[in-house]
Amino acid sequence: MTVVSPDYSPPSRPRFTKAMRVPFSACDPAGIVFFAQYYVMFQNLVDDWITEGLGIAYGDLLGPRRVGLPTVRFETDFKAISTMGDLITLGLEVEQLGNKSLTLQLMVIGLDGVRVEARQVIVCTNLDTHRSMPFPPDLRHAIAMFMAKSTESA
Amino acid sequence: MTVVSPDYSPPSRPRFTKAMRVPFSACDPAGIVFFAQYYVMFQNLVDDWITEGLGIAYGDLLGPRRVGLPTVRFETDFKAISTMGDLITLGLEVEQLGNKSLTLQLMVIGLDGVRVEARQVIVCTNLDTHRSMPFPPDLRHAIAMFMAKSTESA
Amino acid sequence: MTVVSPDYSPPSRPRFTKAMRVPFSACDPAGIVFFAQYYVMFQNLVDDWITEGLGIAYGDLLGPRRVGLPTVRFETDFKAISTMGDLITLGLEVEQLGNKSLTLQLMVIGLDGVRVEARQVIVCTNLDTHRSMPFPPDLRHAIAMFMAKSTESA
Amino acid sequence: MTVVSPDYSPPSRPRFTKAMRVPFSACDPAGIVFFAQYYVMFQNLVDDWITEGLGIAYGDLLGPRRVGLPTVRFETDFKAISTMGDLITLGLEVEQLGNKSLTLQLMVIGLDGVRVEARQVIVCTNLDTHRSMPFPPDLRHAIAMFMAKSTESA
Repeated sequence: MTVVSPDYSPPSRPRFTKAMRVPFSACDPAGIVFFAQYYVMFQNLVDDWITEGLGIAYGDLLGPRRVGLPTVRFETDFKAISTMGDLITLGLEVEQLGNKSLTLQLMVIGLDGVRVEARQVIVCTNLDTHRSMPFPPDLRHAIAMFMAKSTESA
Repeated sequence: MTVVSPDYSPPSRPRFTKAMRVPFSACDPAGIVFFAQYYVMFQNLVDDWITEGLGIAYGDLLGPRRVGLPTVRFETDFKAISTMGDLITLGLEVEQLGNKSLTLQLMVIGLDGVRVEARQVIVCTNLDTHRSMPFPPDLRHAIAMFMAKSTESA
Repeated sequence: MTVVSPDYSPPSRPRFTKAMRVPFSACDPAGIVFFAQYYVMFQNLVDDWITEGLGIAYGDLLGPRRVGLPTVRFETDFKAISTMGDLITLGLEVEQLGNKSLTLQLMVIGLDGVRVEARQVIVCTNLDTHRSMPFPPDLRHAIAMFMAKSTESA
Repeated sequence: MTVVSPDYSPPSRPRFTKAMRVPFSACDPAGIVFFAQYYVMFQNLVDDWITEGLGIAYGDLLGPRRVGLPTVRFETDFKAISTMGDLITLGLEVEQLGNKSLTLQLMVIGLDGVRVEARQVIVCTNLDTHRSMPFPPDLRHAIAMFMAKSTESA
């Protein structure tokens, strides 16, 4: 299992965010978000980020273009609970862009601060062979632009 | 974010296992398991382990007994894909039992070996206050017995 | 099983709507929405309708106020598929408000027209006993107001 | 919306069944099964029925063979709740087999009797065109055999 570098610090202001209210459908018998549902929220965030933030239709990418973006590692710290009805913000920042892989920092922020903090490593694959491949140029370029903008405004 | 010790090695034979066929309902547009669905499978595995493996009804624990077992950390390596219809085995082993926390090793094993490997840290809480508390004696005892049996037969 | 009256006709313009893009997470191996996921979308729509449309916090209702709104009947016609990335509108209209029950008309609308059409019957219950009870006055009033507004503007 | 014939009566002994314990992951903040989760259970039941009951790998059918089995209508009566930890039996019976469509009766049975009762209409499609087509001969034959066996043993 990969070792996480101890110098991790979450970005104070993630560049791509989505606000939402915690729905009933994400909550468990304790009335709080079922942890597995955070992964669905994070997946939807990445979907929105690529489509809206980068301007590349995620559905086209994984559909007709046959570009896969499977997750190879996900590490998550659940620091505080979220209750049904809470207003939360999901945030995303790019930590590193490699030739064939991408590391994202993801978080859930409530009124009381960061509640969930995660790092996701995604690889780019050919969906017909499930083998890794370099990111398509348009996607790579869009991610690099997003990162540049982040640094600039930091 | 907590640092993962680099000396991790997955158990070769987890003590609690469940076999299943990858259902359509867990698969994504690539025809492989959507990574978020592995967390539902792992949650069901822990549910089964406590109820069947330890003999303590998980539903009673989280229902009438008001004992919460929220996840505070989950780190997962997705090493190989699972396709719709694949026969897989989910495995669980206890890595560490603390006074108020429990570390589990979880895995998904296919015909080709370990496909997903995870470490989950759970804390024991009072569901009315969401504050951590020591494990109830029956649960602690049952976990300790499970660990002893594991060591013995290793 | 209850008989559905044959004179049903879906409202041409539902009064409460939410637009969304079909996410990857709702899609199945055929790249289209997995039918079970429409029920999650409909649940989220009702959640949003009560909270935003009626101004009554759904989380409070089902949490501290212990008012349950379980579904007793759901009938759904899936008329056309939705593909990953499609822009869709979810719509809700009240068909009937009884003393202890509520009938909703729900739909999914794509660029090509109505794709999913459903009728949901909800009852009001006390969450401690799971027995039916009349709607709380504030909820009943808000639903009646919503219906009046619908009729007026029809 | 299609009218349901009023002479419906659920089979007293469905021919294909699966027993399960209601997991935490299927339950909502009221500690009972979230109704949308019943559709996932029913989907898994149909998946198991085709694979195990009919002997035709569902994953192959929807994967390499490109045979789609989308749902065009689902009507469900939720008659009694199921609580976390409850032992339930899911049952399936074929009501009608047409050239391109199939009507199933589905149910959830608890110790207290039938809790959920549903009728699902499935059509057979070509997954590349999403157009309806006759069932493949092996699937049609297996369903017909299943129905004959059911009648015989009734």
